[in-house]
Amino acid sequence: MRARHNDVEYREITSPANPLLKVFRRALAEGTTRDGCLAVEGPFLIEEALRAKPQATLHSVLVSDEGLERLRELVRHLPAKSEVARVSDRLFRQVAETQSPQGIAALVEVHRRSLHSILQAPNALLLVACGLQDPGNLGTMMRSAQAFGASGVVTMTETVSPFNPKATRASAGAIFHLPVFVDEPPDALFKALRAAGVRIVATDRQSPSAISSADLRGPLAILIGQEAAGLPPEIEGEADLLLSIPIRPGMDSLNAATAASIFLYEVARQRGFSH
Amino acid sequence: MRARHNDVEYREITSPANPLLKVFRRALAEGTTRDGCLAVEGPFLIEEALRAKPQATLHSVLVSDEGLERLRELVRHLPAKSEVARVSDRLFRQVAETQSPQGIAALVEVHRRSLHSILQAPNALLLVACGLQDPGNLGTMMRSAQAFGASGVVTMTETVSPFNPKATRASAGAIFHLPVFVDEPPDALFKALRAAGVRIVATDRQSPSAISSADLRGPLAILIGQEAAGLPPEIEGEADLLLSIPIRPGMDSLNAATAASIFLYEVARQRGFSH
Repeated sequence: MRARHNDVEYREITSPANPLLKVFRRALAEGTTRDGCLAVEGPFLIEEALRAKPQATLHSVLVSDEGLERLRELVRHLPAKSEVARVSDRLFRQVAETQSPQGIAALVEVHRRSLHSILQAPNALLLVACGLQDPGNLGTMMRSAQAFGASGVVTMTETVSPFNPKATRASAGAIFHLPVFVDEPPDALFKALRAAGVRIVATDRQSPSAISSADLRGPLAILIGQEAAGLPPEIEGEADLLLSIPIRPGMDSLNAATAASIFLYEVARQRGFSH
Repeated sequence: MRARHNDVEYREITSPANPLLKVFRRALAEGTTRDGCLAVEGPFLIEEALRAKPQATLHSVLVSDEGLERLRELVRHLPAKSEVARVSDRLFRQVAETQSPQGIAALVEVHRRSLHSILQAPNALLLVACGLQDPGNLGTMMRSAQAFGASGVVTMTETVSPFNPKATRASAGAIFHLPVFVDEPPDALFKALRAAGVRIVATDRQSPSAISSADLRGPLAILIGQEAAGLPPEIEGEADLLLSIPIRPGMDSLNAATAASIFLYEVARQRGFSH
């Protein structure tokens, strides 16, 4: 059934068995639909998806009665091509993953980029997550990578999915803007980096060379290991340079997202990155 | 009932109504006992507490049957004065807060320091959290503050408790090493900082001065605001200097713990902090 309210044309869904509701329910729990669209909740992430055009396209939007009232402006500014479905507050809560649902959710297609084109940039800066298990840490890394001008984020060796709902939320929208390459085979990646003249650096807290004493200008890929175990030796062995972030003696380590963010900040500082 | 196993003398608790179990259950949920002892779970945090002598003293240790077998070495190295209580795995699970209990928990007294003595250090470096709501972020900040040689962390203006169980876990043990001053009245703190000649700096992403272009040597207090809203104007007004971390135009902000960690890293870098 089609209806209009506040200049928005929408479809009304009343049955919990509706196929689109089923798609939303599964996708919000898993992070993506089966055909790879990102599922996100809340006005903040949906606004970020709208700002990320043309890399991101909003397909379906699910809005609750309460959401339609409260987020009138946002719903009115959805692209004409987005399909808007309206459900009761009760049905929305059944579909939502968050503890305090904010009345709006969407399926967003993020258009893929080729790793090759990204490696050709004169100042390519890649963050490579190797074995990270904490989705919040991976999301925070994506947020920092976007903030400090990185060209993309790569995941490998059983890193948690960057499309995990917690990673998407912690990315604060960076997931829509920043090219992400998932589960890259290490051999192919390292070959492509070498062919493109991209230096490979890794953090190693035993290294006597501090990140601030190395020249981090020029194309660079930064390898970040698992929170507890660090980089697997066969991955660390691929690095051209091992660098440390000096910390107080006796301290175990920094949080993995913190270490990656400081590394990215140091690169940006050396490259004269400014507002 | 007293018993011995693997050279460890312990008391056996079999009743769920035992008063010590009740103290543990409440303290593990809230973060502290009523008399201010920190309640922690898992061998990692307990090892950190042991390493933090004399600032930290282990009072009571609760260990499960399974924990006593698996963590034999740790239990054997507990200080002679710690009271060890043994419970069944089932009782331990009822008391534990974590989803996968690790068979050991402890009540740790962290000895207080005076803010005055800390401000007298020639290179005092304080992190002041103003209104932070996310305990994980506060814990990550404490971890970074300890890593980069800060003298202490101060909380004010309704910041979440640094003794919140999530903050303690994210601190990765820094909570035992780093002096923490909770709910300081802003007026008294700023007066004490000025009297001690400590400069007050704040992050403000609108500021044209980048952290890397300011001289951050000498006694310093860094104000960090709430994740979304930033610093309240009356607190920001107390800063001698407003500084920004340059990020990509159009980006909203960094994660609050990331911003604090980068600020601390930049201070350490300028002060020539090394391994």
